[in-house]
Amino acid sequence: MTTEQDATAKNNADFAEYADLGATTSEAMEIAETSMDRVRELVPDETLADRIRQKAVHATGDPEFQHLVRFTGSNDAKPVRAGTRAVLDEQPIVTDITMVKAGITGRGHGCPVRKAIGNGAELAERTGMTRTAASVLELDRNGVYEGAIAVIGNAPTAALALADCIEDGTRPAVIVATPVGFVKAAESRKRIRTVAREYGVPAITNVGRRGGSGLAAGLTNELVHAASDVRNGDLDIP
Amino acid sequence: MTTEQDATAKNNADFAEYADLGATTSEAMEIAETSMDRVRELVPDETLADRIRQKAVHATGDPEFQHLVRFTGSNDAKPVRAGTRAVLDEQPIVTDITMVKAGITGRGHGCPVRKAIGNGAELAERTGMTRTAASVLELDRNGVYEGAIAVIGNAPTAALALADCIEDGTRPAVIVATPVGFVKAAESRKRIRTVAREYGVPAITNVGRRGGSGLAAGLTNELVHAASDVRNGDLDIP
Repeated sequence: MTTEQDATAKNNADFAEYADLGATTSEAMEIAETSMDRVRELVPDETLADRIRQKAVHATGDPEFQHLVRFTGSNDAKPVRAGTRAVLDEQPIVTDITMVKAGITGRGHGCPVRKAIGNGAELAERTGMTRTAASVLELDRNGVYEGAIAVIGNAPTAALALADCIEDGTRPAVIVATPVGFVKAAESRKRIRTVAREYGVPAITNVGRRGGSGLAAGLTNELVHAASDVRNGDLDIP
Repeated sequence: MTTEQDATAKNNADFAEYADLGATTSEAMEIAETSMDRVRELVPDETLADRIRQKAVHATGDPEFQHLVRFTGSNDAKPVRAGTRAVLDEQPIVTDITMVKAGITGRGHGCPVRKAIGNGAELAERTGMTRTAASVLELDRNGVYEGAIAVIGNAPTAALALADCIEDGTRPAVIVATPVGFVKAAESRKRIRTVAREYGVPAITNVGRRGGSGLAAGLTNELVHAASDVRNGDLDIP
């Protein structure tokens, strides 16, 4: 055995530790699956809404989170169905900030993924509103949220702006809103639930101060996952 | 008043709701400050480590999180000082995944920001290890982690790989590691603490299953913030 071969053999032995967790590209899927198996011991696995509750626990690492998710629609399954259908229809996924966009899986869907932030700079400067709120209003003026999967993971003001757009007539296919924090986060999600109920827009949100970009991306990715299951014949959405 | 002027006046009134939260670009800072004021009512504000504890609470929206942060070094302030110094020295900030990189502030520092993921594809394919672990090993081969601010927000296997690199001689300036989840996340952080202690690498981590990209980015941004305070003469780090 040459020194180089020897080094490779040693390296491969060293690598067993990582390889145990999975293999090449499918590793991420495998780790995710093992992780979801553990989650399924902690969260019911009976309804479409349970899938989202499970994903919330998976994304936060906290079994408690299953109780903090809220579904706005004629029943708990409604926003999950609407979101899954929107993914199958390849509607745009529109996030508030770059970090949430970065968390949306690139696989299993043909939806264009875009972010609001970066738009509406002139509007923000002219009015004094937040950049994120302005970015949502600006995209809405261009019709971007109509029929879209609207995802807000970070900015309460973006959620408040989106609520205004809905009052003004915009109808996203589904809203996923989980802004985190101590200032207006819980209130902004409550406002989303209120307009969602009033105008018949399905929405997935959470209560309390927790939430964030990782949660929003995770829940949206679960809609993508559900769409894949429909395509594979493993799930039926009426 | 023309119809257009009227519409603008109406719009500006409508916008008051968002404007209340702050103004133009400084709005984000203002919301963050109001939020941090509330956090400071919940978390002590006495030491450098308290800043990080506060930021953990701010990023997670959960007062409980102040008790879950761990500091590895000769004292609790050590990793905060080391990280702040590394920001002042404009050392690279190296994240595990895109989402964490997207969460690192673009302001207040001159550190190059890069991510591991996307590197080491050949290594992953040849060995069967995870792509994130391979990406860390690949960057380490190129000396990227030496003296760097190493940030792991998502992937336990990336944290395990980084621990191996440290055993093999690499010395980051500081580690921020908060992978989330039910499979190897807590273990990977424990392993980071063990090698950090053994080889004298300052580290900020957390215990338990929670954590994630938003937390890792938030804690790293607090190091950037501390560096700004040093530059402004508001903070002294020996």
